Amino acid sequence: MSQQEPYIYFEDCAVGQTFNAGPVTVTQDDIIAFAREYDPQDFHTDPVKARDTVFGELVASGWHTAALAMRMIVAATPKMKGGMVGRAVENISWPRPVRPGDVLSLAIEIAELRLSKSAPDRGLMRTKNTVVNQNGETVMTMEAVVFVPRSGGKI
Amino acid sequence: MSQQEPYIYFEDCAVGQTFNAGPVTVTQDDIIAFAREYDPQDFHTDPVKARDTVFGELVASGWHTAALAMRMIVAATPKMKGGMVGRAVENISWPRPVRPGDVLSLAIEIAELRLSKSAPDRGLMRTKNTVVNQNGETVMTMEAVVFVPRSGGKI
Repeated sequence: MSQQEPYIYFEDCAVGQTFNAGPVTVTQDDIIAFAREYDPQDFHTDPVKARDTVFGELVASGWHTAALAMRMIVAATPKMKGGMVGRAVENISWPRPVRPGDVLSLAIEIAELRLSKSAPDRGLMRTKNTVVNQNGETVMTMEAVVFVPRSGGKI
Repeated sequence: MSQQEPYIYFEDCAVGQTFNAGPVTVTQDDIIAFAREYDPQDFHTDPVKARDTVFGELVASGWHTAALAMRMIVAATPKMKGGMVGRAVENISWPRPVRPGDVLSLAIEIAELRLSKSAPDRGLMRTKNTVVNQNGETVMTMEAVVFVPRSGGKI
């Protein structure tokens, strides 16, 4: 990517490239506010009732962690002309819970690049995304397939 | 599931069972508020700037649609003892955008049931989830794998 060019294009990308994003601190208030709106279950909304659940404590909704991952990705990765448009997400897993006070960061690795069959002015990039907490423990993994404009395209 | 029992257990489930959830109306304010927090890109946050993007109009973040799907699932499906805990999510796709004013609903189908190898008191259920808009057009599909307690288990 040239220094004069504010955008990243398909031609600038290579399998194996990595990006780091974050950190973001997750507060108890954040966890409860998200969950009241989108995932209202006791282990996400009520620190006292959460003690009697399988988690034994308040933990973040997995969808909250996914949304925070998106925020970190948008803030930290090189900009694509037209924005970052997801085609699909595959294989999300949450091997450990996210707790109040956790500090999350994200590693992104380009795992695959291919041209779009339907749109000649863009390609598709598969990324492997790993969200870790302040102890380096993985709390979420996900693979995303996003469109990437080609440098000569009209997008 | 007996009528005296408020919870659903692994033994109550069968492949092919379906559940319906929703509807939920998505407002422009909802779309912008979610996106400012978690997916701040012009086509999700600014109705005017969105006109010059690939979408040509304001559209919801795919993560917003996913979070709304979770809200519909929690509200509408039979309760599991211990709550609904996701093991993984696979194959999310967003074939069409969600626009302000769209009315979303969700169909859930049990696609697979198996016992957990690590935890004898629970099983795993794979569900196929399809979110449609008011025109019956699919805006998101996703497969989820969730834990389901067995009726004799300690969960």
